[in-house]
Amino acid sequence: MNDTLQQYIEKLNGLDIKNMYNNDFFLTWDKTDDEIMAVFTIADALRNLRERNISTRIFDSGLGISIFRDNSTRTRFSFASACNLLGLAVQDLDEKKSQIAHGETVRETANMVSFMADVIGIRDDMYIGKGHTYQKLVADSVTQGYEDGILEQKPTLVNLQCDIDHPTQCMADMEEIIHYFGGVENLKGKKLAMSWAYSPSYGKPLSVPQGVIGLMTRFGMDVVLAHPEGYDVFPEVEEIARKNAEKSGGSFTKTGSMAEAFRDADIVYPKSWAPFAAMEKRTDLYAKGDFDGIDALEKELLKQNAEHQDWSCTEELMKTTRDGKALYLHCLPADISGVSCEKGEVDASVFDRYLKPLYKEASYKPYIIAAMIFLAKVKNPQKLLKELEEGNKLRWRQ
Amino acid sequence: MNDTLQQYIEKLNGLDIKNMYNNDFFLTWDKTDDEIMAVFTIADALRNLRERNISTRIFDSGLGISIFRDNSTRTRFSFASACNLLGLAVQDLDEKKSQIAHGETVRETANMVSFMADVIGIRDDMYIGKGHTYQKLVADSVTQGYEDGILEQKPTLVNLQCDIDHPTQCMADMEEIIHYFGGVENLKGKKLAMSWAYSPSYGKPLSVPQGVIGLMTRFGMDVVLAHPEGYDVFPEVEEIARKNAEKSGGSFTKTGSMAEAFRDADIVYPKSWAPFAAMEKRTDLYAKGDFDGIDALEKELLKQNAEHQDWSCTEELMKTTRDGKALYLHCLPADISGVSCEKGEVDASVFDRYLKPLYKEASYKPYIIAAMIFLAKVKNPQKLLKELEEGNKLRWRQ
Amino acid sequence: MNDTLQQYIEKLNGLDIKNMYNNDFFLTWDKTDDEIMAVFTIADALRNLRERNISTRIFDSGLGISIFRDNSTRTRFSFASACNLLGLAVQDLDEKKSQIAHGETVRETANMVSFMADVIGIRDDMYIGKGHTYQKLVADSVTQGYEDGILEQKPTLVNLQCDIDHPTQCMADMEEIIHYFGGVENLKGKKLAMSWAYSPSYGKPLSVPQGVIGLMTRFGMDVVLAHPEGYDVFPEVEEIARKNAEKSGGSFTKTGSMAEAFRDADIVYPKSWAPFAAMEKRTDLYAKGDFDGIDALEKELLKQNAEHQDWSCTEELMKTTRDGKALYLHCLPADISGVSCEKGEVDASVFDRYLKPLYKEASYKPYIIAAMIFLAKVKNPQKLLKELEEGNKLRWRQ
Repeated sequence: MNDTLQQYIEKLNGLDIKNMYNNDFFLTWDKTDDEIMAVFTIADALRNLRERNISTRIFDSGLGISIFRDNSTRTRFSFASACNLLGLAVQDLDEKKSQIAHGETVRETANMVSFMADVIGIRDDMYIGKGHTYQKLVADSVTQGYEDGILEQKPTLVNLQCDIDHPTQCMADMEEIIHYFGGVENLKGKKLAMSWAYSPSYGKPLSVPQGVIGLMTRFGMDVVLAHPEGYDVFPEVEEIARKNAEKSGGSFTKTGSMAEAFRDADIVYPKSWAPFAAMEKRTDLYAKGDFDGIDALEKELLKQNAEHQDWSCTEELMKTTRDGKALYLHCLPADISGVSCEKGEVDASVFDRYLKPLYKEASYKPYIIAAMIFLAKVKNPQKLLKELEEGNKLRWRQ
Repeated sequence: MNDTLQQYIEKLNGLDIKNMYNNDFFLTWDKTDDEIMAVFTIADALRNLRERNISTRIFDSGLGISIFRDNSTRTRFSFASACNLLGLAVQDLDEKKSQIAHGETVRETANMVSFMADVIGIRDDMYIGKGHTYQKLVADSVTQGYEDGILEQKPTLVNLQCDIDHPTQCMADMEEIIHYFGGVENLKGKKLAMSWAYSPSYGKPLSVPQGVIGLMTRFGMDVVLAHPEGYDVFPEVEEIARKNAEKSGGSFTKTGSMAEAFRDADIVYPKSWAPFAAMEKRTDLYAKGDFDGIDALEKELLKQNAEHQDWSCTEELMKTTRDGKALYLHCLPADISGVSCEKGEVDASVFDRYLKPLYKEASYKPYIIAAMIFLAKVKNPQKLLKELEEGNKLRWRQ
Repeated sequence: MNDTLQQYIEKLNGLDIKNMYNNDFFLTWDKTDDEIMAVFTIADALRNLRERNISTRIFDSGLGISIFRDNSTRTRFSFASACNLLGLAVQDLDEKKSQIAHGETVRETANMVSFMADVIGIRDDMYIGKGHTYQKLVADSVTQGYEDGILEQKPTLVNLQCDIDHPTQCMADMEEIIHYFGGVENLKGKKLAMSWAYSPSYGKPLSVPQGVIGLMTRFGMDVVLAHPEGYDVFPEVEEIARKNAEKSGGSFTKTGSMAEAFRDADIVYPKSWAPFAAMEKRTDLYAKGDFDGIDALEKELLKQNAEHQDWSCTEELMKTTRDGKALYLHCLPADISGVSCEKGEVDASVFDRYLKPLYKEASYKPYIIAAMIFLAKVKNPQKLLKELEEGNKLRWRQ
């Protein structure tokens, strides 16, 4: 047995994960600390096996259904990679090619596409109050279908980004932090700045900043949320962050100054998002079909954004972080000043200096997704990891 | 050996299915009673194996090609599921992304996409006289390609709905009937009402009502076709239904009254379709590129439909069926009064009461498609079923 | 051991292919004669195994990424077939469904889609100076990602057509020639005419004629390039063709007469393409966003084309070839006079007479692509071919 894999298995032995079997993954704060650690550990274990060219297929056949209600490259490919790694074929539900417009219910569609679905991944992040609700409805529908004997397996729902949280992204971000600093045990007292940053585009979801403060307050770090006035996130998520921090022995604070957030920070996450109130208004306008109203709102928001062009991750600002060398994180793609726009979230020279950790950060996402599926599908993960190692089936016959 | 699987194998032993090997599936009435029963039996056997977590992959690699010339959700996913269950990867021929418009022939395209295709599934149901003809041409083209040594295997054609029949749908419907009533032997004398129903939409294919009367008259049932004046189906298919009924000891009758059809019915299938003559006219207009003519025809048809709003599967009508409890069938999605439209094919309360059997009905489709492929690809199905059971390869390592 | 497979293995034993491992395939003229012969030989070996129903999956999981920046049917399906044959699932990067427009760099996207990618196939043939450059950039990006530890494997780049070469097409064409004439050793002194032909469409890539003269001059044949004045190909590729011919003991000549090219030819490849200079101009106009200029250029080019309607592969012209029976090649789809257009590249009667060899020619492409991947992924191809034969895993359990 490979030593590193052995350590992962031993770690899992100490965690209570029995509720993950046959369950879903909506929001990180639905999960216990043990469950969150199990996802990181399984992700590492799957990566360890793959690096050693050992196949981790646990399915001989089966489907992973993806529903993307917003454009996506990296999440789409991460989901496809995770499914493939475990042996599932991806079938995309392209709502434009389907008959869904015909008026059928979510419950019906969910069951119709799931007869052989082992997992359903959904991205629905555009409208406040909608994405998470939709995901819940899909999960409830197929759970009902399973209980009624329609489906022979309960498809696991994996949240690939909703209006509230972006768990696969934020857990990949967090796994980068854990590896960068050499383990969860080294994070106590580290300062993380989740900061709004200027972007010339508009309407970016709140799920990343919310996901970050909702997850990263669990590890004893000092998490600071910084944004200009009016760019608040959901109060409920701030409340979760506060409770997490208290429990973990860290802190959660807010500031209206990017400079203050960055000062002596060990980790910085500068990223644009839309104000919560504006996103709510937009959802209402959309529901009413008031497209003139949406246009007007867009103009207003862009104007509001433009007042905060100084919220940018510049070289000057980076110098004020811990030893001038904070770990820079981003979910990508970033708005890079002078590259993708005149003035954006980050200086090109800063971004370029962090390419390797940024790409590494992204590279965890397929494994995080695969780990979420693995934990929902395998009753005794430690035993199966051992069997996979012992079976030693080559992933690739070189 | 599992008892139920043993029974399926014994049933297959009594059927003459030698002509199914290396063959296609266009229309149910091309097939003998033995062949039809073999599809139901293999579908049940594959489901039995999957329920017991035994892999039914008969392909280690290979492609299933899908061509959807009309939108589709459930048939698309059913085909994808069936292919996946047997080990094939699905490759969709999206005619918009291809160079087909360039002027190449069907024969050429069919061969070009089939070098490693084991099955081709086609949905082409929009124009009278076109869909079946196109499917035949594709099948002939690849059969020729196989005989010429271009293709190393003859791809099996599976009709995923044409202008004449919808065999995968109607066989799934029929399998629901068989299981609901506890076996084919219990169907003698049961009354089935295939009835037109009002829908505010227009131009629905005739392939479902035709497929239903063409198939369900084979089992000794009393099949009644009901529709308003002018909503006739193909006379050729009615002729088939009549002959089937005669041979099976059942009956096939027609009526202009939904109430008469529903009275004491054991099974009801209320569904909208377009009049055959109108669909022929539409095909001609389309061929001439007369889009004004098509618009005018559409308005005329919607107006004609609107005269028959009383053709709806209401609670009142359901009460007149056998013990007020006829099995309600639909291919889905249905036009539900007060849900997807103001007034439609069925009352919401009726539809909701039958959700479980409706979803179960739909759940047979992937297995029916898989069974059609299995029978075309496997010389000795009984032997292979035994080997799959004995091999006991897990579909999913839980 | 099957005799034919044994011969392929022995042939491979005599070839120096060590540089192919972990490498890419951009242009045939990057490769040595040994490497080119290895691709043909592996393609034949994979076909031999598949014909004998032996699985050639060398991957238990893994992704093949496809990027099509131009429409495609046969190349898309050939790539999908090749990936499937080796055990890879295809994931298409549809740039319209992605967030690429957002401004991210090629380096970023290339890495983001490649975490589990074993091969990337790209078609980008529309703009002079762009396609090959883009492919190189993608390959460099993922090679860097591999070296940086971001990717656990180096994805192999396969050129599915660029602005310069179309290696998978031309090698499939060449494999048809080799098999048609019974082996490479029989090609010395054979005359091949690569000729421009009239088409009523406009802007066809130069990569096919260039790929043909760049590859087929390596086998001792007399290759003639014929085109009207103004339809020159890249001078650099002509230079390669000249050097190849010299080295192989064949010849490379140019003529302004289709009749001269066809006279006594053993092989003819009449095909339309756009003039190199015009394509350069179009690229510039496109870069400037000058769409009026592009429209004007298109009209001008169509007019210029129309002056050469006599450049067509007619029955009369075919009679002047060797015994009137030259092998007719085309990459398909062809512009067929009286079929896909009034007057085009070839007479319908000529085209129809050659359907079998034309389809056979196309059928080699999946195997050529699979061979390119196989050689990049397998350190000791001969050993693995032996193991696949001995393992005798059925592709299809009949």
